[in-house]
Amino acid sequence: MSLLIVGSIALDSIKTPFGEKKDILGGSGVYASVAASFFSRTALIGPVGSDFPPEHIEFLRSRAIDISALHKIDAPTFRWGGYYEYDMNQAHTLDTQLNALAKFDPKIPDSLKETPYLFLANLDPELQLKVISQMKRPRFLAADTMNFWIESKRDALHEVIKKVDFMLMNDSEIRQFMETPNIPLAAQRLIKLGCKGVIVKKGEHGALLFTKEEHFSAPSYPQDVLKDPTGAGDSFAGGLMGYLAKTNDISGENIRKGVIIGSVMASFNVEDFSLDRIKRLKHNEIMRRFEEFRHFSRFEPLPVEHFA
Amino acid sequence: MSLLIVGSIALDSIKTPFGEKKDILGGSGVYASVAASFFSRTALIGPVGSDFPPEHIEFLRSRAIDISALHKIDAPTFRWGGYYEYDMNQAHTLDTQLNALAKFDPKIPDSLKETPYLFLANLDPELQLKVISQMKRPRFLAADTMNFWIESKRDALHEVIKKVDFMLMNDSEIRQFMETPNIPLAAQRLIKLGCKGVIVKKGEHGALLFTKEEHFSAPSYPQDVLKDPTGAGDSFAGGLMGYLAKTNDISGENIRKGVIIGSVMASFNVEDFSLDRIKRLKHNEIMRRFEEFRHFSRFEPLPVEHFA
Repeated sequence: MSLLIVGSIALDSIKTPFGEKKDILGGSGVYASVAASFFSRTALIGPVGSDFPPEHIEFLRSRAIDISALHKIDAPTFRWGGYYEYDMNQAHTLDTQLNALAKFDPKIPDSLKETPYLFLANLDPELQLKVISQMKRPRFLAADTMNFWIESKRDALHEVIKKVDFMLMNDSEIRQFMETPNIPLAAQRLIKLGCKGVIVKKGEHGALLFTKEEHFSAPSYPQDVLKDPTGAGDSFAGGLMGYLAKTNDISGENIRKGVIIGSVMASFNVEDFSLDRIKRLKHNEIMRRFEEFRHFSRFEPLPVEHFA
Repeated sequence: MSLLIVGSIALDSIKTPFGEKKDILGGSGVYASVAASFFSRTALIGPVGSDFPPEHIEFLRSRAIDISALHKIDAPTFRWGGYYEYDMNQAHTLDTQLNALAKFDPKIPDSLKETPYLFLANLDPELQLKVISQMKRPRFLAADTMNFWIESKRDALHEVIKKVDFMLMNDSEIRQFMETPNIPLAAQRLIKLGCKGVIVKKGEHGALLFTKEEHFSAPSYPQDVLKDPTGAGDSFAGGLMGYLAKTNDISGENIRKGVIIGSVMASFNVEDFSLDRIKRLKHNEIMRRFEEFRHFSRFEPLPVEHFA
C-alpha cells in the first residue's frame, strides 16, 4: 500500500440551489480516498455505521480502495446535513449526528503501519494524534482540519501541526486560527508552529502553497458547472496525496503538480452531488483538465527592451 | 501621445489599521496615469479643484504625464473619505464631496483625439460616453466602473460596455451587475452585452481575464506588506494599459503579460498610503516582481506515464 487515509465516512443530506439529496455518500475519508484511488494504491480507515449501504462498500471496492481496516461500529453512520445558498462558498450546517464517528477509535493494523504516505483527513485532532502515534513515521504526512477543531481542540491541533509535513486548511480556517486576515502572514505563523508547509484551499480562488522559502499560487478554475461543493477540499487533498504517493516524489516541483492535480479533482467533484461526477470520471479527462490549468495560467517572460 | 486616461483627481482621507492620513493624493485618473507612466507616454484628463496642491501637479509632471488638458474647475477638489477594517478587502466610505467632479464635463482637445489607447477610469458612465463620442475610435479602449454606477446608471453603463474592447471590474461588482455569484458565468453574460472581454480584479486573489474563447487566471501575490489598498485597482489598470500602449500589441498573449504588469503595479501600490510606494518605485523592481509572479505560478506538464 502506498497511501493510507484516515477520515470520516458519512451519509450527507444536502440542499443547494440545484437540488436536494438525502443520505448520499460523503465523509472526508471517502472523498479523499476515492480521489486518491485515481493515482495510487490507497487504504481507507474510518468508522462505518451498521446502516451503511452495502452499495457504497461495493463502490469503494470497485475503486480498488483497501477497505479491510474499516472500523465497523454498532451505531448508525455519521450524518451531516447542510445547505448552500446561491453563493456556494459557505456551507451552512443544519444537523450533525456523530453516531459511529463518536465511537471511532482508530486502530492501525500492522500491515498498514509502514505506509509511506499518510493523509489525516478532517477529524478530531486527538484521533489524528492517535493515528500518528501508531505509525512508523511516514515519508510524507499531511493533515486537514476544520473550524470546529480550531475552536474546540486548539492544543491537540498544535500537536498535530508539530508532527506533520504539510497542513491543509481553507482560507477562512487559517485566518481564524492564526488570527490575521493576511493569508501569507497566517501561513508563515502556522509554519512557525512546526510543520514544513501549508496548503491553503481557497475554493473558487484556487490554492496557495507556502513553505519557509517557497510560494506557489495555483490558478482558479473557471467553474461554470457547480452543483454541490461538498467534499471539494477532501477531493483536492486526495488528488494531491494520491499523486505524490504514485510518483513517490516530494520535491517542491512535484508538490506543485500535486496541488494542480488536487485542484483538478476538486473541480470535477463540485460538478455534481456526492461523488457522482467522480464516479463517471476518466483518466483522460484528468489529463485534459490539467492541461487546461496549464493553458490558462501560462504567460511569457517580459522582454527586457520594454523597460529600456 | 500613446495613452489617454480620463478619470478622477482626488484628495483622500483614509484610515487603515496601519495609520490615518488626511487629504492625500488620490483619484482613479491619478493612480492609473502614474502607474501607466512607467511604461508609456500618457496624458491625463480629469477635474482639478482650485485648492489642489501645486506639489501634486509637480509630481504628475515629474512622471512625464501630459497634464496640459486637465480641467481646472472653480470648486474644491473632489474628496473621498473612507476606512478599512483589519480585513482590507472592503472599503467603507465615510464621506464623499464631489465638488469639482460634479462640474466635470470632459472636453478632449484635438491633439488627443487620435490617441490609440484610451482608458476610462472609474467615472460616471455618462461622462465616459461623452469621452468616447469625442474620440476617433482608439485601437484599444478599456473602461472601469464601480458599484455606485451599477446601481444608479445601469443604462449608460450598458452603452459603455457596447463601445469598449475590455471592461475592468472587481469581483463583487461583476457579481452584482450580472446577478450571479458565479464569476465565469457573470463574465460570459457581460461579454454578451457587447464588449470583447472582461478583466475581473479580485484583490488578494489575483485577476481573471475572460474573452469569448479564452481564459487567463493571474496568480495572487503573497502580499505581506499591505498598508492601504486604495487605488490598487486603478494602478492595476494603469499598469496594464501603459504596458499595452508601450508594446502596441493587443494579442491575447500580450494582454496576459499586461494583466501581470497590472498585478505587479497593484502589489506595489498597496505597500504604502496614496502613491508613496509608487513614488519610490524603480523599473528594476517591476521587472523583479514580474519574474516573481512567473516563479510562483509556474508548474511543469504531467508526464503521461503517471496515468498508465
